[in-house]
Amino acid sequence: MQSSIDFNCDLGEGCGNDAAILPFISSASLACGFHAGDSASLRDAIAACVAAGVAIGAHPSFADREHFGRREHTLAARDVHALVVYQIGATAALAKSAGTCLNHVKPHGALYNLAARDADCARAVAQAVRDCDPQLLLYGLADSNLTRAGEELGLDVVHEVFAERRYQANGQLVPRGQPDAVIADVAESLQQVRCMLSEGVVIANDGLRLPIRAQSLCLHGDRVDAVEFAAGVRGLLERMGVAVRPPQRNIQ
Amino acid sequence: MQSSIDFNCDLGEGCGNDAAILPFISSASLACGFHAGDSASLRDAIAACVAAGVAIGAHPSFADREHFGRREHTLAARDVHALVVYQIGATAALAKSAGTCLNHVKPHGALYNLAARDADCARAVAQAVRDCDPQLLLYGLADSNLTRAGEELGLDVVHEVFAERRYQANGQLVPRGQPDAVIADVAESLQQVRCMLSEGVVIANDGLRLPIRAQSLCLHGDRVDAVEFAAGVRGLLERMGVAVRPPQRNIQ
Amino acid sequence: MQSSIDFNCDLGEGCGNDAAILPFISSASLACGFHAGDSASLRDAIAACVAAGVAIGAHPSFADREHFGRREHTLAARDVHALVVYQIGATAALAKSAGTCLNHVKPHGALYNLAARDADCARAVAQAVRDCDPQLLLYGLADSNLTRAGEELGLDVVHEVFAERRYQANGQLVPRGQPDAVIADVAESLQQVRCMLSEGVVIANDGLRLPIRAQSLCLHGDRVDAVEFAAGVRGLLERMGVAVRPPQRNIQ
Amino acid sequence: MQSSIDFNCDLGEGCGNDAAILPFISSASLACGFHAGDSASLRDAIAACVAAGVAIGAHPSFADREHFGRREHTLAARDVHALVVYQIGATAALAKSAGTCLNHVKPHGALYNLAARDADCARAVAQAVRDCDPQLLLYGLADSNLTRAGEELGLDVVHEVFAERRYQANGQLVPRGQPDAVIADVAESLQQVRCMLSEGVVIANDGLRLPIRAQSLCLHGDRVDAVEFAAGVRGLLERMGVAVRPPQRNIQ
Repeated sequence: MQSSIDFNCDLGEGCGNDAAILPFISSASLACGFHAGDSASLRDAIAACVAAGVAIGAHPSFADREHFGRREHTLAARDVHALVVYQIGATAALAKSAGTCLNHVKPHGALYNLAARDADCARAVAQAVRDCDPQLLLYGLADSNLTRAGEELGLDVVHEVFAERRYQANGQLVPRGQPDAVIADVAESLQQVRCMLSEGVVIANDGLRLPIRAQSLCLHGDRVDAVEFAAGVRGLLERMGVAVRPPQRNIQ
Repeated sequence: MQSSIDFNCDLGEGCGNDAAILPFISSASLACGFHAGDSASLRDAIAACVAAGVAIGAHPSFADREHFGRREHTLAARDVHALVVYQIGATAALAKSAGTCLNHVKPHGALYNLAARDADCARAVAQAVRDCDPQLLLYGLADSNLTRAGEELGLDVVHEVFAERRYQANGQLVPRGQPDAVIADVAESLQQVRCMLSEGVVIANDGLRLPIRAQSLCLHGDRVDAVEFAAGVRGLLERMGVAVRPPQRNIQ
Repeated sequence: MQSSIDFNCDLGEGCGNDAAILPFISSASLACGFHAGDSASLRDAIAACVAAGVAIGAHPSFADREHFGRREHTLAARDVHALVVYQIGATAALAKSAGTCLNHVKPHGALYNLAARDADCARAVAQAVRDCDPQLLLYGLADSNLTRAGEELGLDVVHEVFAERRYQANGQLVPRGQPDAVIADVAESLQQVRCMLSEGVVIANDGLRLPIRAQSLCLHGDRVDAVEFAAGVRGLLERMGVAVRPPQRNIQ
Repeated sequence: MQSSIDFNCDLGEGCGNDAAILPFISSASLACGFHAGDSASLRDAIAACVAAGVAIGAHPSFADREHFGRREHTLAARDVHALVVYQIGATAALAKSAGTCLNHVKPHGALYNLAARDADCARAVAQAVRDCDPQLLLYGLADSNLTRAGEELGLDVVHEVFAERRYQANGQLVPRGQPDAVIADVAESLQQVRCMLSEGVVIANDGLRLPIRAQSLCLHGDRVDAVEFAAGVRGLLERMGVAVRPPQRNIQ
């Protein structure tokens, strides 16, 4: 049984329940204006997180406001790099202007998924993080190409797991287009979390038990029932005696 | 007669003649994606400037791709601040990623004009520059509210003049909507430059001689004849014995 | 009665009781190697503060290891500026390397006192802070030349008071050379703190009641009884219902 | 024959001939106060380099003013890391304050030599550079442990050669204690440079021809005849048609 975990949520996406979610989480990934939000909402989200003692990260995505960053774009690796550097730089400047600093970067939506399975995209994202600030933590799907790319570049990576998404036998998430992609039932989600934390395992959609590293647990802030969900997860973690706090960094 | 001047142009705006203009100028203000360009064009513009030995700056604007940043938006001062911090941060991160650093910030289009005449907007822009990096030079219309706001915040400001725009008696530019806003004739523009540099004066559209501080001379890169124009100005400066170089900073 | 205050202590000065003091304070000013400490002790102090949830600041001083930074040096303002930039830069880099960022700057010893009474020195220190990072809070003796210089440069300043030092009628501290400079008795110190927080007043050494702004309360870590002192102050603050937390920043 | 090379010199070490050397070089490594110089001399050296168009770097060393940084200290790797982060941070802050940015880091004296031959020290130095700013170029002895460590961490490294030092068959410099360590004769030094650039080879002290990568050529500013030496090297490079310019970076 692990003794602590980070509990993160995507915020600043205009879903209207950021304030209600903040008390439950330890880290927030903030929409950078490419799939949702703008400079003003980003500033407000940073201020809300600082006030709540929640660590902040940039949440860069493809330039796709039309589909909330969920459509995959075909970009050269160097253009993925520029895309991510741009969004991290903008977010970091707003954080600095508020007297705080970014703790992590987590790609959003289609960029997250592409970086999890495509090594070139993964390397471009990781290189962008490193070029902006090598102290930034890189969040990625647990044991994916993205976490591997980050490790190869010497970044501290955070292996992320999902309470409410189903896994394939290869460790990737079941794509959102498929009927069983999302675990709608809260109780079933909590069961998945319990299994990840107490046994280090997730049950894939074919029934296989996959070993999984759970350093951060993701809540999707755009769920209709995101607040109840957050409360449910937090309550479970407290009952299990698992402390909720931002990821710990490996310091030399 | 002044001995040197900065010659700046807006680049990265997709006008197709950046490469032809670079040899003539000493500084470039790069579109940040809000009125033109995107993260990839910004990266390319930075690389081209570094290769040409041209100093670079961010060229933030209102979020107005539809009208090339020329429409004025009504924003609270704090939202102007966030808008500008965001764009400076994004541009600075791409510059850093290329191993260089930003030298200046110059607002674009409607934001430039509003900051020149409106003290609140001016202060928000200047504060954004200072919050990002107090060493950044702030370009503004010579002796305008923007340069005053920068000076009040302790920034090094650069008083900018225009070869190809006509001035009103109050020192503001004749707005683009008016028929005599732009000096189409190159010879007449060069005459205006000569007068600014040799006498420190510009002739306003009512015939008044206005004293003017010319620390940087602006070329609009989106003119059809921008390259010929740049060559003409550069030739004039050489004949006058005025050195072309980035603005000098006041170091403590 | 004010509802909260920052409680700060100088750490990393080799006094051996840093670990015992950390639980009581909200901010620490870390010796930068010029009056005490070196790069390794600075790194360790940063790590200890991060682990304890204590905000960190740079504590620059004159280059005077011989006298623990308590001798006044005669330096040109621009050399004070370079001295302080150097120490802030070194400390900020170690903080960044540990994944955190500096929250404040507080000059040490003779530099603190000189900047409190001499406007040129004050301005050089404040300018150095601003040039390094305009988001840094500047700690100075309450209502002194240093806090004024910081305010003039647009910095967020923190007005600091002392539990264990006596004040002159002009608001300056009684110099350490004088017999009544330090309040040795803990109870008397606590009484001074109580008066500052409940009435906003300190009793000067001539009996005059001085109004005083108490945004941060300083504990000297090099006192023999520093730990008991810290516990005593913290206990008093809790009994008074005054929350202990880092200074709040004015965000635009 | 290579078409260009960087020509670098250590400056700010109090040798009195910095101004005379600047016209000949393209990069300068500035003493950070640990083997020579202080915050004021560092500021002055930065300003002189900016005015001369010379790229700047930090030149960190062991804390050894007594022996000009030429004595080896026995430090844990993590203390080497802190030592180097501290000095880079201080130098970078002074550079930023002057409106410029650091281009490189080159360890000095005993630290340079130790990092060239000891993998742990090399890795600590390279990690320190990366933690401060991954865009910084790392200078090291050509094909040494230091350049290897930098490459492993994804840094752009610069392979450095010496005109005036003799090489051992293993590619290391002949230690300064040995009688043939330094090539006193200028003509012989120039011959060594010519051979390195035209053939990519240096003749070791046992007569062996070693292949060598010459990306930057070092001049020691503390030679008595440093100015004549610099002029001689520069003249040779011009006669050979080798351009002198700062190292080129690998941009994504």
